[in-house]
Amino acid sequence: MTLPATELSAGLPPCDFTVFGGTGDLALRKLLPALYQRELEGQLPAGTRIIGVSRTELDDDGYRHAVREALHTHVTADELDEDAVRRLVDRVRHLTLDSRDPEGWHLLHDLLKDRPQVEGGEEVVRVFYLAIAPALFGPTCERLGAAGVVEDSSRVVMEKPIGTDLESARAVNDAVGRVFCEQQIFRIDHYLGKESVQNLLVTRFANTFLEPLWNSRWVDHVQITVSETLGVGDRGGYYDTSGALRDMVQNHLLQLLCLVAMEPPTYVGRETVRDEKLKVLQALKPMSPEDVDRSTVRGRYTAGLVDGAAVPSYTDDIGHPGSSTETFVAVRAEVQNWRWAGVPFYLRTGKRMDRRMSEIVVVFKEPPHAMFPHSEGVTSPNRLHIQVQPDEGMRLHMTAKEPGPGGIRLRPVSLDLSYATTFTQRSPDAYERLLMDVIRGNPTLFMRRDEVEAAWTWVEPILRRWQAAPDRPKRYPAGTSGPTAAATLLERDGRHWQESEA
Amino acid sequence: MTLPATELSAGLPPCDFTVFGGTGDLALRKLLPALYQRELEGQLPAGTRIIGVSRTELDDDGYRHAVREALHTHVTADELDEDAVRRLVDRVRHLTLDSRDPEGWHLLHDLLKDRPQVEGGEEVVRVFYLAIAPALFGPTCERLGAAGVVEDSSRVVMEKPIGTDLESARAVNDAVGRVFCEQQIFRIDHYLGKESVQNLLVTRFANTFLEPLWNSRWVDHVQITVSETLGVGDRGGYYDTSGALRDMVQNHLLQLLCLVAMEPPTYVGRETVRDEKLKVLQALKPMSPEDVDRSTVRGRYTAGLVDGAAVPSYTDDIGHPGSSTETFVAVRAEVQNWRWAGVPFYLRTGKRMDRRMSEIVVVFKEPPHAMFPHSEGVTSPNRLHIQVQPDEGMRLHMTAKEPGPGGIRLRPVSLDLSYATTFTQRSPDAYERLLMDVIRGNPTLFMRRDEVEAAWTWVEPILRRWQAAPDRPKRYPAGTSGPTAAATLLERDGRHWQESEA
Repeated sequence: MTLPATELSAGLPPCDFTVFGGTGDLALRKLLPALYQRELEGQLPAGTRIIGVSRTELDDDGYRHAVREALHTHVTADELDEDAVRRLVDRVRHLTLDSRDPEGWHLLHDLLKDRPQVEGGEEVVRVFYLAIAPALFGPTCERLGAAGVVEDSSRVVMEKPIGTDLESARAVNDAVGRVFCEQQIFRIDHYLGKESVQNLLVTRFANTFLEPLWNSRWVDHVQITVSETLGVGDRGGYYDTSGALRDMVQNHLLQLLCLVAMEPPTYVGRETVRDEKLKVLQALKPMSPEDVDRSTVRGRYTAGLVDGAAVPSYTDDIGHPGSSTETFVAVRAEVQNWRWAGVPFYLRTGKRMDRRMSEIVVVFKEPPHAMFPHSEGVTSPNRLHIQVQPDEGMRLHMTAKEPGPGGIRLRPVSLDLSYATTFTQRSPDAYERLLMDVIRGNPTLFMRRDEVEAAWTWVEPILRRWQAAPDRPKRYPAGTSGPTAAATLLERDGRHWQESEA
Repeated sequence: MTLPATELSAGLPPCDFTVFGGTGDLALRKLLPALYQRELEGQLPAGTRIIGVSRTELDDDGYRHAVREALHTHVTADELDEDAVRRLVDRVRHLTLDSRDPEGWHLLHDLLKDRPQVEGGEEVVRVFYLAIAPALFGPTCERLGAAGVVEDSSRVVMEKPIGTDLESARAVNDAVGRVFCEQQIFRIDHYLGKESVQNLLVTRFANTFLEPLWNSRWVDHVQITVSETLGVGDRGGYYDTSGALRDMVQNHLLQLLCLVAMEPPTYVGRETVRDEKLKVLQALKPMSPEDVDRSTVRGRYTAGLVDGAAVPSYTDDIGHPGSSTETFVAVRAEVQNWRWAGVPFYLRTGKRMDRRMSEIVVVFKEPPHAMFPHSEGVTSPNRLHIQVQPDEGMRLHMTAKEPGPGGIRLRPVSLDLSYATTFTQRSPDAYERLLMDVIRGNPTLFMRRDEVEAAWTWVEPILRRWQAAPDRPKRYPAGTSGPTAAATLLERDGRHWQESEA
């Protein structure tokens, strides 16, 4: 079979894509399937290699076997093309290396150096993907530098968490920064790779109808919810040192907030979007200890029912009854700038909730005047729901007249855009886009150092107050929408969480 | 069978609903089926009678037979309920009367006077529906007055055309006004009874998201199209003295324009909406003869194909080759006020067009700045399509990101509201609502005298110029979208007609 549409990869440099943690869950479940999808579309540049690095004693064939298995497990049957699988697996190599051990790095050096020439003699871009424990980000970069494999065109990719507070984040960024300059560093937040999140930028900036409404004059408040039905699973050890604020709010939820709140950049591209996101993070109203008490809610799940199955409590999950870690957070944030002054941004995220759902809801103000004095029926404020997962889509909730010859009866209706029914293309997984952006060298959707640190700067007073405050996270039964205090947080403002129809 | 939901008619007065032209097409095809639907829903007040008046020699039973036949023809089978048919037919009487003949009016007087008492002794409201030739509006009202049947609570209903120019409209209004005061006069424009047209008011004024955009800053232009596939049929004689400008633009299209352009009234009710519509009509830029030449297009269909069938030309339809009557009009209108200055309103209507469709399209301006410099794909301006017929609905056309991991590809998509799929209720025929509004005494959706005359004031210079100008209507083949000059009218402004997907 000939490659389909090879011109799709035209202009992209060949890569040596080195994955540290090559036999790990992230690599096999997400990264290699994402690379496979791009292979299927003919978008991987000719000459590109994929080098799995792990401590496991494996030769190339053994790793290729593992990759092939992973693809058969994590790619749907109708997307599995044996030719494409073969082409991808042919690119795969494995290197056994304990990244903490200074020995053996020369093997990586040799493997990267002694590679088949690329047609045309093009430079090969080296991508180092750190699918490993965050504690190893700094040391691994140091070894990469010492091994002499980092070139000007090389890139390093890492995923949250970057640190556990401002100081440790700075330490990681410093360590990585000693080997890679900022333009070479790609900090992934996979939420930014989701189609509906990117479409938020297009919806705002390629259309006329939203921007005039997108400010404190017309927007009442914004809600951002990321709820999971899963518990901590086998990440309990890590999770108990982190909690929902560090694990979700500091990165994903604040990033979504930034995309909602940011000013229009000069154009949507490289640094411009990141500059505007940074401005939003810097405009977040700092929290005093009293603000933290008033404007945050932390919760922790107790035993309950999720999807009809009994699940244990968090403390049973982690086997540590004395833990004070939160599995749920709700925060009332404020963006102190001209556009958003006085508009609350309510964020919430939790594990073991009633359903898996990520959604941004922009709630508009009520019309300034009730024009239908004799109308019956119910109205609710206009709302734009941007559903991030599970089903990507957008709904504009409005009020319409119910058909009928009597008096005017008002009724909420919605204008709907469902990705699944509107687009014939499949929505690619977030990693597919982000990995291609790494290969392309496009940093727009990645977090810059100053963003990460600005996010920590805002989050830290909450962490500190929680640590100092005597009260524990509020309990909520698994399979519910979180502690009642999260509802109270909005009710105090005369508002309520928008629970969208499932 | 007991009446369903009789409380729906609670508070409404019993009526004697007298239909002049009771055996005519409008009465049998539209009015009685509309009254039937309200009977079916239990909304006709107890004691209400329906009195058909015509020159035909018919007794009550004969007319009841005709009404029963009409219902079986014009009501769909699943909506026919024999009990409701019987209840309606039981209300029906017939009076043989030549309205031009002064004799016989005492019979109407007696019929209205000598009626069964209504329970509770409630006053019976007399409604006189003039489903007769417009030339008879004045004389019939005069006879009604002379016969002493008009009470303070009585109402008269008539449908366009009111006059053929300003002077004749005034004459009709004067004649009717000598017998009925303005509050008693209900001038029907059945377009205003359509669900989607009323929903336009709700969409604008019960929602926050449209009004901030609804002005010259964000709206590029507005298009209003009413296209018919029918020819003049057996109305040729009347039509040739009228033409599309008088028959459609002066009333229907200008009324739609008013609802789009009007300022928010204090509330949506009786005089307030009509006050605001009047202000729009008064703000229409008067046309000089040069304006008429530049900003109007008149057309006339030649032989062609409509829905696959060969149809004759207009002049063959009416058998008058020398006619200069137009069957198509396109006009570029301007509303000279603060909100709309510089925003053209393009109106067009025609017979024997390629399809039957009434639609309002509000075309928004392009975003002020192109934010996606490297994007591929097509964009088009945001548009709100309000479909009036055949399928009532609303679509917001916007630009979205096409899913895919490559660069950003923009694509037009639409957020849709279809009445048929959103509402389980049937959409009532326009007459159902309007007749109930007459019974209720609610004039909001009817045209006031000053509106009718303001519309004629704007239309007259066009009529005069066309009469004086030597050039004839442009030809267009039946089954097309009108003469090419109609396209040129917009192209000159760098715009084009929005032909919605069928």
